[in-house]
Amino acid sequence: MRAAIFHQGEFTVAPIPDPVLAEGQVLVRTRACGICGSDLHAAKYTDAFVDVAKRSGGRFQMVKERPVVFGHEFVGEVVENGPGTEGRFRPGTLVTSMPLTIAGNQVLGIGYNPDVAGGFAEYMPLAERMLLPLPEGMNPDHAALVEPIAVGVHAVEFARTTPADAALVIGCGPIGLAVIAALKLKGIAPVIAADFSPARRALAQRMGADIVLDPAAGSPYAALEQAITPAGFDGSRHAQLLGLSPKRRPAVLFECVGMPGVMQEMFVGAPPGARIFIVGVCMEPDRFEPFFGIIKQLNVQFVLGYTAEEFAATLGHIGAGRIDVAPLITGRVGLEGVGQAFTDLANPEQHAKVLVEPWR
Amino acid sequence: MRAAIFHQGEFTVAPIPDPVLAEGQVLVRTRACGICGSDLHAAKYTDAFVDVAKRSGGRFQMVKERPVVFGHEFVGEVVENGPGTEGRFRPGTLVTSMPLTIAGNQVLGIGYNPDVAGGFAEYMPLAERMLLPLPEGMNPDHAALVEPIAVGVHAVEFARTTPADAALVIGCGPIGLAVIAALKLKGIAPVIAADFSPARRALAQRMGADIVLDPAAGSPYAALEQAITPAGFDGSRHAQLLGLSPKRRPAVLFECVGMPGVMQEMFVGAPPGARIFIVGVCMEPDRFEPFFGIIKQLNVQFVLGYTAEEFAATLGHIGAGRIDVAPLITGRVGLEGVGQAFTDLANPEQHAKVLVEPWR
Repeated sequence: MRAAIFHQGEFTVAPIPDPVLAEGQVLVRTRACGICGSDLHAAKYTDAFVDVAKRSGGRFQMVKERPVVFGHEFVGEVVENGPGTEGRFRPGTLVTSMPLTIAGNQVLGIGYNPDVAGGFAEYMPLAERMLLPLPEGMNPDHAALVEPIAVGVHAVEFARTTPADAALVIGCGPIGLAVIAALKLKGIAPVIAADFSPARRALAQRMGADIVLDPAAGSPYAALEQAITPAGFDGSRHAQLLGLSPKRRPAVLFECVGMPGVMQEMFVGAPPGARIFIVGVCMEPDRFEPFFGIIKQLNVQFVLGYTAEEFAATLGHIGAGRIDVAPLITGRVGLEGVGQAFTDLANPEQHAKVLVEPWR
Repeated sequence: MRAAIFHQGEFTVAPIPDPVLAEGQVLVRTRACGICGSDLHAAKYTDAFVDVAKRSGGRFQMVKERPVVFGHEFVGEVVENGPGTEGRFRPGTLVTSMPLTIAGNQVLGIGYNPDVAGGFAEYMPLAERMLLPLPEGMNPDHAALVEPIAVGVHAVEFARTTPADAALVIGCGPIGLAVIAALKLKGIAPVIAADFSPARRALAQRMGADIVLDPAAGSPYAALEQAITPAGFDGSRHAQLLGLSPKRRPAVLFECVGMPGVMQEMFVGAPPGARIFIVGVCMEPDRFEPFFGIIKQLNVQFVLGYTAEEFAATLGHIGAGRIDVAPLITGRVGLEGVGQAFTDLANPEQHAKVLVEPWR
């Protein structure tokens, strides 16, 4: 089969062996697969990616020396049920799956694994027990967005947000947009969103953000302060100590940039007692002043991925139109276009999510 | 009155004006006042202390240009009830208080405030409404330990620990020892404690730690892993994904060092899903790799101080002997000895808590 192979900084489209199905696996023809910010990072900073992934427990199996086929946000079509499957899905069934496959009693990651080609290849060997059929009538391409949207759903579930909370989302790339959509689904208001890019701000609005701000024009943290502060609030220590002031609403903040420096900015800007959720995947070392966290008694929850239940629920939300992902799809390329798309995605004005269509 | 005055890196003992009582204040004769790690920091790194305190909201009012009298862990004796007081405490009553005073409708910090002398002076103008009388029969000097022990009680209350948790305390200075005592009071077991200093480890044992380790001799994180991992635990992704393994116990970790680099060490060492409480007050910038937090979905709660209820409860615990603070008092000095004590406290073998006795 054909695949966009990444090796030592370069993409090449070339044939690789077809998957050989293990016990319980189904052969799936890849229909579309999104390019993720982590893919860009792994391609641009391979050494750092491999190093930190290895030191932190080996969840990503990528190594520098071996070619890898990226792609972990996919939708496809069942082609063939392999040995030991129950035949739950007829050939032709549209399916998606968490980016994992099971071979015997081994669980294998898909997307950064030199031993299993990801969605930038024509076929994938997926685990029957993990396959989710698309709801009737769903636009199949939208299922390629389930994975990134599930990250936002997970972050918001983890946050146990309630309508009492006011929310601020820093960064409106695909992950920030997913968080916005998940917050609105939970009835959170206001959801304040901030991004330097006009195109990203327009998308934030389409995903339902109530207040959308350009941080170059004014502080999103000031907007959050305003949203949580009731009339008659008295911030003096006297009023606070003696309980003479009405209380502020709780604030939840979501870091969806994944770059060094943002956490420090949030530590300085967040109101006392705020809960900060780190959803962006920063793979570089970061520097911050703990004292701001201490003086405000901040809580920082790092989140990653999603549960199987959240992934399935996200498929349901998108399938039923409760989350509209259509505006996020800003480009489509074939395997030959992958390298250029990785370059183009650096410009937030041009793209949010690019789908790779191996059969295009 | 006499005071140990800190100004531009030096301590001098000199007379300063007696406090003038404002509405609602009581004149208290200082009996003893502990030297806190933050005092050492403020003295050694005044510029950084003043800078970060100012940028983070002005809770500490110290400035470089003005002399200050430190001391916020005090016990004293009522001398005189000022204007507008209810006379709740007769002269001679032994009292302690959170390190705040109230003057009219202003709340003033005590300890780093150039406008209010702290406990390294002979008298303090305290707020009647904040005074707590010592329980009958309590060793009065032990009340000087209420403040630092309350920090540990607060951290453990904030953590909402339950006997299901296993705990690791990194650093066994006064704050770490306070956390250990508070954890044992909550019935947490095991409480694992780690410190490079043999004297500090001996104190950790006396405060009730179940396992006390020298990090130079073996990883405290490995000991925590062992404590939370049940027989038959299978950490493979296959077993985890399919729920085939018994679960581990939840882990709570307490940072009680307050120095850069410890958080990174904890990020690397903590088990997935751990809750980390930052109790040590690190006033310098810190550097860490967020990816370890992300991959393990760690939660980091920064804590500071205590509530009025926790402060009062701590006085009760110490007064009733539920927390024995006697071993923590390793030295006593008069005002003239303050400068030398600040130097001596740098050596953990020599000291845990030094009490300043202005009338000594």
